[in-house]
Amino acid sequence: MIEVMVLTVSYNGSAYSGFARQPKRTTVQGEIEHALGILFRREVLTTCAGRTDAGVHALGQHVSFEVMTEEVEGRSIRKMTRSLNALTPEDIVIRDIRFMPEGFSARFDAKSREYRYRIVYSAVPPMFLREYAWWIREESLDITAMRKAAQHLIGEHDFKSFCLASSAVDKPTCRNVMEVELFEEGQLGEDCLVIRVVGNAFLHSMVRTIVGTLVEIGTGRREPAWVLDVMEAHDRNAAGPCAPACGLTFWSVSY
Amino acid sequence: MIEVMVLTVSYNGSAYSGFARQPKRTTVQGEIEHALGILFRREVLTTCAGRTDAGVHALGQHVSFEVMTEEVEGRSIRKMTRSLNALTPEDIVIRDIRFMPEGFSARFDAKSREYRYRIVYSAVPPMFLREYAWWIREESLDITAMRKAAQHLIGEHDFKSFCLASSAVDKPTCRNVMEVELFEEGQLGEDCLVIRVVGNAFLHSMVRTIVGTLVEIGTGRREPAWVLDVMEAHDRNAAGPCAPACGLTFWSVSY
Repeated sequence: MIEVMVLTVSYNGSAYSGFARQPKRTTVQGEIEHALGILFRREVLTTCAGRTDAGVHALGQHVSFEVMTEEVEGRSIRKMTRSLNALTPEDIVIRDIRFMPEGFSARFDAKSREYRYRIVYSAVPPMFLREYAWWIREESLDITAMRKAAQHLIGEHDFKSFCLASSAVDKPTCRNVMEVELFEEGQLGEDCLVIRVVGNAFLHSMVRTIVGTLVEIGTGRREPAWVLDVMEAHDRNAAGPCAPACGLTFWSVSY
Repeated sequence: MIEVMVLTVSYNGSAYSGFARQPKRTTVQGEIEHALGILFRREVLTTCAGRTDAGVHALGQHVSFEVMTEEVEGRSIRKMTRSLNALTPEDIVIRDIRFMPEGFSARFDAKSREYRYRIVYSAVPPMFLREYAWWIREESLDITAMRKAAQHLIGEHDFKSFCLASSAVDKPTCRNVMEVELFEEGQLGEDCLVIRVVGNAFLHSMVRTIVGTLVEIGTGRREPAWVLDVMEAHDRNAAGPCAPACGLTFWSVSY
């Protein structure tokens, strides 16, 4: 019988050329598939909930692949988790393993995805958050204006203006953004602004372009209503810059 | 006129042979004094609130040194902070600069010091907290028992049993521990137990030995009252192991 094994995976994206397997590059998928290859003594090809770019982190990435029941019979989840964590580098951690019926896909069965983006705005650079936040050398950001702008993003829209131009050619660019929340919190003793975005799915660079656009508003360079102009333009050049990869974490997936 | 300049400093201790300057070693003090030497074009010798060991981090270390008023006249704090951050490596950040009257010492005027120790207890290793927490491969810890044990540490006591043996020879080993608090929190999306210790001053390895001792109780290997036996022994061999450096952060100093 065929079953689908689903891994919940955390990784620090700093050292990787993104999630997706690429020849001659160190990728998260490459490392995971290498470990699975040793565990199952055969080639294992995986599917993920979201292909993160180079430098982007993940807390709750989901990775699925088919296994034959015989391959996993008598093997405990605890032992397999331990083996996989011993076989992957320390900056990739397998948190959990679950089994789903044949046909399940970490990608196609995902109902929504949550990303969180951290910003440190301060004259002084972050230290503990250096690898996990975008440092903006501003002493204040107008969070109220950013929140107002964020409301315009919610709902089913064509987000073509927020998509890496080369990825938007002849592809559907409508997505449903369910939540955009901004809150400040302390992490490792340092203050940061978190932009939390939940949507059914995301275009290439969409979250980072949303963040770059909201920061234009937070610094006062643009008004909140500018977001509406950006959306209506259907043109990547209309939006703000793409925020750096290190601030972004693929947080979780709902099925 | 002589004034005292006081820096508030954060650092990731992973790459350093501790805070204190040592010949031919990379140390936090060495890096800071090197930067100050360039800024003031002379040798600058500093004093700190607490000399952290190799691998120990700091959020709010304080470092002081004397300057002549002429050396700092007309220089803005903002610019000096920026210069120092440009002159130190990225894992050392000067957060703040203040001036105090002649005679002030970051070390001798400190009224209390706070340390925080992070523990991740889980079958699965931490990922984002790997460099900032001690991973204990246990699925539970008896936090209630640890809190009970911690209460025995509060007050003015001889902490010789919690001091690195070679450092306790012919030196006073009484210290006043004001608070030992245990709480669980999420950091970078991962759960950890924080042991927060506040005292007037600490002996060498004292916080890490307190943590190692409390963990013996948390795992059920010892009873909470064992802490009293440890204290009465006045012998380092009576206490639990010294917890790893990476879990410890020198959090703040009160003057």
